[in-house]
Amino acid sequence: MGKLARKVAMVGAGMSKFGAHFPIKQNRDLWQDALISTINSVDNGVDLSKDVEELYLGNFSADLFNHEAHLAPLMAQLAGILPKPAARIEAACSSSGIALRYGVLAVASGIHDVVLVGGVETMTEVPTVDVTDSLAAAADTRLEYPAGATFPGLYATVATAHMHKHGTTDQHLFDVAIKNYENGAENPFAQVQNTIEQVMAAKIAKVKDQGKEPPAWNSPYDFLRSSSNPFIANPLRLFDCSLVTDGAACILLASEEVAKKYTDTPIWITGTGQGSDTLSLHDRDSFTSFRSARYAAETAFKMSGLKPKDIQIAEVHDCFTIAELVALEDIGFYRPGEAGPAVSAGETKRDGKLPINTSGGLKTKGHPVGATGTAQAVEVFKQMRGIAERNRQVKFDVERALTHNVGGSGATAVVHVYEK
Amino acid sequence: MGKLARKVAMVGAGMSKFGAHFPIKQNRDLWQDALISTINSVDNGVDLSKDVEELYLGNFSADLFNHEAHLAPLMAQLAGILPKPAARIEAACSSSGIALRYGVLAVASGIHDVVLVGGVETMTEVPTVDVTDSLAAAADTRLEYPAGATFPGLYATVATAHMHKHGTTDQHLFDVAIKNYENGAENPFAQVQNTIEQVMAAKIAKVKDQGKEPPAWNSPYDFLRSSSNPFIANPLRLFDCSLVTDGAACILLASEEVAKKYTDTPIWITGTGQGSDTLSLHDRDSFTSFRSARYAAETAFKMSGLKPKDIQIAEVHDCFTIAELVALEDIGFYRPGEAGPAVSAGETKRDGKLPINTSGGLKTKGHPVGATGTAQAVEVFKQMRGIAERNRQVKFDVERALTHNVGGSGATAVVHVYEK
Repeated sequence: MGKLARKVAMVGAGMSKFGAHFPIKQNRDLWQDALISTINSVDNGVDLSKDVEELYLGNFSADLFNHEAHLAPLMAQLAGILPKPAARIEAACSSSGIALRYGVLAVASGIHDVVLVGGVETMTEVPTVDVTDSLAAAADTRLEYPAGATFPGLYATVATAHMHKHGTTDQHLFDVAIKNYENGAENPFAQVQNTIEQVMAAKIAKVKDQGKEPPAWNSPYDFLRSSSNPFIANPLRLFDCSLVTDGAACILLASEEVAKKYTDTPIWITGTGQGSDTLSLHDRDSFTSFRSARYAAETAFKMSGLKPKDIQIAEVHDCFTIAELVALEDIGFYRPGEAGPAVSAGETKRDGKLPINTSGGLKTKGHPVGATGTAQAVEVFKQMRGIAERNRQVKFDVERALTHNVGGSGATAVVHVYEK
Repeated sequence: MGKLARKVAMVGAGMSKFGAHFPIKQNRDLWQDALISTINSVDNGVDLSKDVEELYLGNFSADLFNHEAHLAPLMAQLAGILPKPAARIEAACSSSGIALRYGVLAVASGIHDVVLVGGVETMTEVPTVDVTDSLAAAADTRLEYPAGATFPGLYATVATAHMHKHGTTDQHLFDVAIKNYENGAENPFAQVQNTIEQVMAAKIAKVKDQGKEPPAWNSPYDFLRSSSNPFIANPLRLFDCSLVTDGAACILLASEEVAKKYTDTPIWITGTGQGSDTLSLHDRDSFTSFRSARYAAETAFKMSGLKPKDIQIAEVHDCFTIAELVALEDIGFYRPGEAGPAVSAGETKRDGKLPINTSGGLKTKGHPVGATGTAQAVEVFKQMRGIAERNRQVKFDVERALTHNVGGSGATAVVHVYEK
């Protein structure tokens, strides 16, 4: 697969608010929110029922979370595009990243001119213990899960190996979290909109209210090292983990020829890459880097003709803080072991040289797993158009961006490159 | 979407034996059986790890049946194609029919030269009552299922409406079943390999063995009208229903340019069509015809340039006997209401003018839901090459064939047209 045969434009992008919405909002409601948000983002308007030729819908497991499957025709019905084709794509937490890729390739190859890509997940319908159990179905349930490994444990293994091999520290991980909380606080669509400082201050205030001696925390690091940030799977603590979230996101793609009908400022997707690796972590040569993500990034860069140094902002898959560091190294932004120090030096903050996860990432925007891939593209769409809400918009003109979406502990990865 | 930009060839096709295989064989084992069967079917051999560029895997709900998701990278690993892309496609019982379509379009559009398409499902890991409950997730679980509608009930509604509108009778349905049992008896890969006569004779023998008076059945119809064929959802009885099955199937697709490397007798896929309809049956204008299937068939025929009358054999989605009649009418082989009489006149038998479901269909070959779409293509591959086992091969040279695969109660449908 070389260059795309023709250019593909994002001409619309939208999302529901991410959060704990069940039972008030369920899959179909969240999807409608994302649809409306997307329609409103199209400069010259769009009649989905007239223009859209196919729907690619990412969803991890409405089966387990909601006892719902066969979601795609329902979502096509709600988008008004019946009887046109619609199917669900599943690749764990990269489901809608893959759906986006299928949409891009369908347009690039000339199969379609206009397609809708979406992602949806409602995770809070089941208790958290069942969320963990359901997510574990994306690991090897015949080998990993019976041995006690759920995803916090698997990523803890990655973190331990990364610390051992590269000298990565808990401070590096804390700095990923602190940054992403800062970004999420500026995102009205995020599930958590407080900085770590605010979380810490609230905790202190609560203890004082109870008439007790407040904890002697002088910095967020003191808080993050305290028992208020308990270990989930050593070395990963509560604030290293992404959230359990309900949400949906949606992207409208158009061919080069048709894009101008919708907008004068299309965001071009010029590279798409997808890679696979063994489902089980224990089958890999390395725990500190995902072959799938390296392959996906290489493919996407080759297709776009860009290199990592050309990218100005990126949304990467921070299902756990360690995953953000692995992502930065797998994409090629940093050499192995250099991502942690770079984050701690502030390079990936909004005002740093390579802002990462300006949306707040999976860490604070939230991680409705099947919607995450498309939601990453929504943030890129906003940042490249200069319309990101509150104080989140980066201060320079974003001409080249990237999204990186991972399934499981790296058995799937998909990368997209965007240009103005 | 007009004609395919270039021709796409089936150069290999294989499947596991269909049946109740759990726990001896599970998803990964069945998939390996299908892989080996496919590799063996490639005339000049194939090195999957070298040649295959992407895997599209159909699966309905390993989530619910096996507490497994994220199957695609695992199956890619077993096929030896890592780190190449692999994702799962879900559209209820048409999951691997859609996967086949994605593969066809990827090759036709020039994205890839060689792709692997598969389907897998292991349904017998859970008790039958849970199978019904899991399958019902492909209906509208917020509106239909709480009202008591599972798929036998939904298709019973279709049957009742068809009988009321078109005069279709239980005899027509019995004749669908009798034919498909006759065909399955000739298929060594089928789950049930007995004719209805054999089933009836076995039942009589068993009663005699118990020293009781045997039932006075003079024909299969007497048996099918007896309490030995109990109502599941009136008017559908036990022998109107397809089976609960474990199995996998696999197709190797190649571009026109590359196909000759593998075989001198490619089977060309010249048309692919997919359609969607409301998820809920109650939202439709008609219960007796599926708009999704009509749209899919029209699209596939238009793409191929063929018409229904050009098709010589077809595998259609007989999840219930009534579904086979609806299929024959939706595809355009018969006008509404004429399929039942045609089946009873023997037109769709192996020696009839339009053999339907020579494999035995979902009725007797079995219906491992996510594998069914690709398994239909396997039967077409064999019939068109003249290599169908036992006495199942039709007696003329099959130059043009069709497969028709439905998801849910018609919310999704996909049709493919094949030519030599």
